[in-house]
Amino acid sequence: MSAVFELPEKPVKDEIKERLHIRRDELFAKQMVIKEKKLPVLIVIEGWGTSGKGTLISNIIKNIDPRFFKVCNLGKRTADETRFPFLKKYVDQIPEQGKISLFDSAWMSELTRLHVSGQIEDEEYEKKIRSVKCFERQLVEDGYLVIKLFLHISKKDQKKRIESLKSDKNTKWRIGDHDLFQNKNYDEYLDTYKAFIDETDAAYAPWYVIDGSSENWATLQALDVINEALDTAFLNSSVNFPVMQNTFSLVKTKKLSSISLDDKTLTDEEYDDKLEKLQSRLKELHYELYRKKIPVIIAYEGWDAAGKGGNIKRITAALDPRGYEVHPIASPEPHEKARHFLWRFWTRLPKDGHIAIFDRTWYGRVMVERLEGFCSENDWQRAYNEINEFEKELVDWGAVVIKFWVQIDKDTQLARFTERQNTPEKQWKITDEDWRNREKWDLYESAIDEMIKKTSTTFAPWYVLESNDKKYARIKALETVIECIERKLK
Amino acid sequence: MSAVFELPEKPVKDEIKERLHIRRDELFAKQMVIKEKKLPVLIVIEGWGTSGKGTLISNIIKNIDPRFFKVCNLGKRTADETRFPFLKKYVDQIPEQGKISLFDSAWMSELTRLHVSGQIEDEEYEKKIRSVKCFERQLVEDGYLVIKLFLHISKKDQKKRIESLKSDKNTKWRIGDHDLFQNKNYDEYLDTYKAFIDETDAAYAPWYVIDGSSENWATLQALDVINEALDTAFLNSSVNFPVMQNTFSLVKTKKLSSISLDDKTLTDEEYDDKLEKLQSRLKELHYELYRKKIPVIIAYEGWDAAGKGGNIKRITAALDPRGYEVHPIASPEPHEKARHFLWRFWTRLPKDGHIAIFDRTWYGRVMVERLEGFCSENDWQRAYNEINEFEKELVDWGAVVIKFWVQIDKDTQLARFTERQNTPEKQWKITDEDWRNREKWDLYESAIDEMIKKTSTTFAPWYVLESNDKKYARIKALETVIECIERKLK
Repeated sequence: MSAVFELPEKPVKDEIKERLHIRRDELFAKQMVIKEKKLPVLIVIEGWGTSGKGTLISNIIKNIDPRFFKVCNLGKRTADETRFPFLKKYVDQIPEQGKISLFDSAWMSELTRLHVSGQIEDEEYEKKIRSVKCFERQLVEDGYLVIKLFLHISKKDQKKRIESLKSDKNTKWRIGDHDLFQNKNYDEYLDTYKAFIDETDAAYAPWYVIDGSSENWATLQALDVINEALDTAFLNSSVNFPVMQNTFSLVKTKKLSSISLDDKTLTDEEYDDKLEKLQSRLKELHYELYRKKIPVIIAYEGWDAAGKGGNIKRITAALDPRGYEVHPIASPEPHEKARHFLWRFWTRLPKDGHIAIFDRTWYGRVMVERLEGFCSENDWQRAYNEINEFEKELVDWGAVVIKFWVQIDKDTQLARFTERQNTPEKQWKITDEDWRNREKWDLYESAIDEMIKKTSTTFAPWYVLESNDKKYARIKALETVIECIERKLK
Repeated sequence: MSAVFELPEKPVKDEIKERLHIRRDELFAKQMVIKEKKLPVLIVIEGWGTSGKGTLISNIIKNIDPRFFKVCNLGKRTADETRFPFLKKYVDQIPEQGKISLFDSAWMSELTRLHVSGQIEDEEYEKKIRSVKCFERQLVEDGYLVIKLFLHISKKDQKKRIESLKSDKNTKWRIGDHDLFQNKNYDEYLDTYKAFIDETDAAYAPWYVIDGSSENWATLQALDVINEALDTAFLNSSVNFPVMQNTFSLVKTKKLSSISLDDKTLTDEEYDDKLEKLQSRLKELHYELYRKKIPVIIAYEGWDAAGKGGNIKRITAALDPRGYEVHPIASPEPHEKARHFLWRFWTRLPKDGHIAIFDRTWYGRVMVERLEGFCSENDWQRAYNEINEFEKELVDWGAVVIKFWVQIDKDTQLARFTERQNTPEKQWKITDEDWRNREKWDLYESAIDEMIKKTSTTFAPWYVLESNDKKYARIKALETVIECIERKLK
């Protein structure tokens, strides 16, 4: 066994067998506790080619009921997956509460392969590692148990396994060029793996290097780690995490109350004239985005009856329907609520070259979920930073991110509510909940002020659309979208 | 205008404008009725290259709230999509109740292109057309409104549009080889389109050929069709469809009561010996399936406490976890309930070369949903045929489909329930519902007899696993799976 990692000492055969038995039974009993405690468990299995990751996973799940786990084969990135942010294919597969996902190779394999083969610049590589760290930390803070295993074998051992697999006609297809390349460049890979483990080792999501020299012994080590990690997690059922200080540069923002509204108006003629010109410009830009494969994400938030719907329509009217999608965001469905709150937005990201418009967004966390108590105080306090990190991912991917707050005053809202109530075709737009929310106007206003202040990053600032006059707000939205896209295309 | 299709007579410009206005308002008012009546609406937009499908879609949705519709760009099949059955990419995108999906090019474009360019055999082409017809009929019978529009332009007009798009540097990228190929082979395409329309035109999902010679006129024709189709659908809110006669060959089956159970046992030695041999054989076969890209679907149904879980485990223990997935099927989530009952199984199909095991299945429709009144009598009566058609799709795709009924008698169930109740680690497996279902044993038994009789097709027969002795059932399951796979690989 190579001594490059500090590995546990291998017991004698009989002891391994005996302890394996005990650990299996322990894990079997724990699956019910995972379910009861609604613990989401992510087990990441990394390691050398031919180190036996598949066999290890088989051995881990042997005693778990298939209702409680899912094995995700995250091998080579497909053509479709390259059209989304690096992390998306991994985020898509995170488990829901009470379930275990086993990732068969994940970001570590992908990044180290790109790095060693020189397909990725150092700077990009470092940035992606930071992304991974954020992602893991966000999961853990949301209550996920993240267990990372690295299955280690020596260069000699790997070579022997490759030869043996190649010599059997039933298994030789399993050896690809990458295995040979890896064995040839074993030392460079080893250094890269070590550095990666070093950099992504954290108390909240530590690495465990496992001696892969024999199957039973590897299984026992994995079961040791998993059982112990579960025990700890069961004790920690409601940990509050320290709220991290914002580290992104912010732009200066105004309080909502200081934004003047009634002077922001347009005549019908001004409106018609500008609307046509701006829409035709946006149409041109849409084709250019498509050709240059630049994704755009437009987020709409605003008071009830502020005019979000009509505003969105003036944007989409200029777009080729094949190149955009509008996502109306209501309260989460059960399978969405059972995952990190950003998950349902990750899964709705546009492909590169496409536009996604969100009618209400991830900011629900720090508005309605905060004020209605749908999440804990610690949850929404952490959310500002989580959201900034999320938007940074999008911008780093190359996306244009535009966030609109559609602003009206309280009187205007009342007038519009009353009109909706009195107009049969518009009655569906007004519900009791709208009236109830209206009563909490002041609470909302201060939450929104806090939100805008804390999430107006230089890379994804908020734009306020003064919408007492809807025409004014629509033109400003179009102008802003065009400006942001033009800046990106320059 | 070419006179190859019978097209409505084009009104004068002013009349078009005026009628457009009226039709737009009508559609605007109808969006709420669609929501209230929970009508799922599928609008398929087909047509010639450069006929203006994108523009038409823009014009149709102009007045609809983005919360109510989704545009699905179903263009060129991606590498991932080729690994699933032909229909899957379309089924995946069907709307939920109360929503509209607009398909921008669908099966007609794909099939005619493959046909004219000679990439698909005649026989295969005809078979796919039959699949499409089944799919459309199943949607309509489930309450979907399916509207199919074909945007028609003449050869000369198409040529002119191609030239004009090519001559502008901002649009020339939009003209691909296929547009040129189509214009060159216009007559052959025309014949193919006509034949396709002819063959897939049905009262439940008729085609409307639209004169695409001018934008406003095309929009008006489309809005005419859509508004009228919606009016009709609103009147038909609870149509019962005639239950179609089964047309698939069936194998002879036995009633459950005539299956002897107590003579189906194995000693521990026999079991251990067979288990090892069979699992190692299945392991070999799994690699062969993977290499030959053959998908396998194993469906488990059976009495509560019949031993499905343990049985599945003996199968999966032999498999590489990277090549299979177990889908435990509980009651549907809201977004699943809002679609055709088979949707949530389509979306869970394995890629080619992979194995999917369903722990409970689409047969819930004719068992629990039937007996608990979760669907109408017409719904479950139709389901036998829908299921046979679904499984035929899978088999035609190249899949091995294996269906197990895990059988025990009533006394054995009681013994196992009691044991579960008295064993702390097993208590989660027994609920009040299990006891309630037990009371309906006789009702279930006759529903199951009917199900097995009506869905034991020659291409996807049921296999009964006698499971009073679980060991016997496990060995029989392994033997059956191996036999079915070997037959396919021959």
